[in-house]
Amino acid sequence: MIGRLNHVAIAVPDLKAAAALYGGTLGAKVSAPIAQPKHGVTVIFVELPNTKIELLHPLGDESPIAGFLARNPSGGIHHVCYEVDDILAARDRLKASGARVLGDGEPKIGAHDKPVLFLHPKDFLGTLIELEQA
Amino acid sequence: MIGRLNHVAIAVPDLKAAAALYGGTLGAKVSAPIAQPKHGVTVIFVELPNTKIELLHPLGDESPIAGFLARNPSGGIHHVCYEVDDILAARDRLKASGARVLGDGEPKIGAHDKPVLFLHPKDFLGTLIELEQA
Repeated sequence: MIGRLNHVAIAVPDLKAAAALYGGTLGAKVSAPIAQPKHGVTVIFVELPNTKIELLHPLGDESPIAGFLARNPSGGIHHVCYEVDDILAARDRLKASGARVLGDGEPKIGAHDKPVLFLHPKDFLGTLIELEQA
Repeated sequence: MIGRLNHVAIAVPDLKAAAALYGGTLGAKVSAPIAQPKHGVTVIFVELPNTKIELLHPLGDESPIAGFLARNPSGGIHHVCYEVDDILAARDRLKASGARVLGDGEPKIGAHDKPVLFLHPKDFLGTLIELEQA
């Protein structure tokens, strides 16, 4: 069911420092910061040859990563995103297996303008998983 | 400098349950458990089209992931591994930038029989990074 690893998301307390680290010290290709107010984050994309790292910083008062950064002030790996061919079929299969889908269970349009869902970390080895329609 | 994302490692409290989750519920291709006593882990490889997920379970009394699992009893994302063309050059560049390399700074032979190093999470956005010679 799951396909490519679309990205690994890392929450960061300081975007400038994060861009300098990945773009400078680690020598990767990084984008400019991109505000995504609908998602409550500003993102820097790190392009690797086979996938992306997304450096996320809170934007606005209700950022979904604010709590995570409060608990992890140095930052940390926030989630992984797997691609699926059919997000509704994937959701139904997961729910039928007893796994919890976050929110109301309806896909939202994610940061790449594609439908996404998040799965409950307690049902997935302590890992927050985003599913994105491929 | 960094190249492909070689893998994402997830520490898991129960290998059988983890194999059933990734191989069954999430429908990915998973290997049999592989004991790696030198590394203090038993590993299940999850093959995705563009990278791997490694499900790690402690093996032996001095497993490097035992403490992590004690703090994260449901499991969690333990590290990411980036490939580099020249691990000694990468190490020297990172040390010159002030970043800390774990252990004695000399590459060890990792789980894929290639030289690896681990970088200090405090210097890398709260993320434990493994570098592997490509």
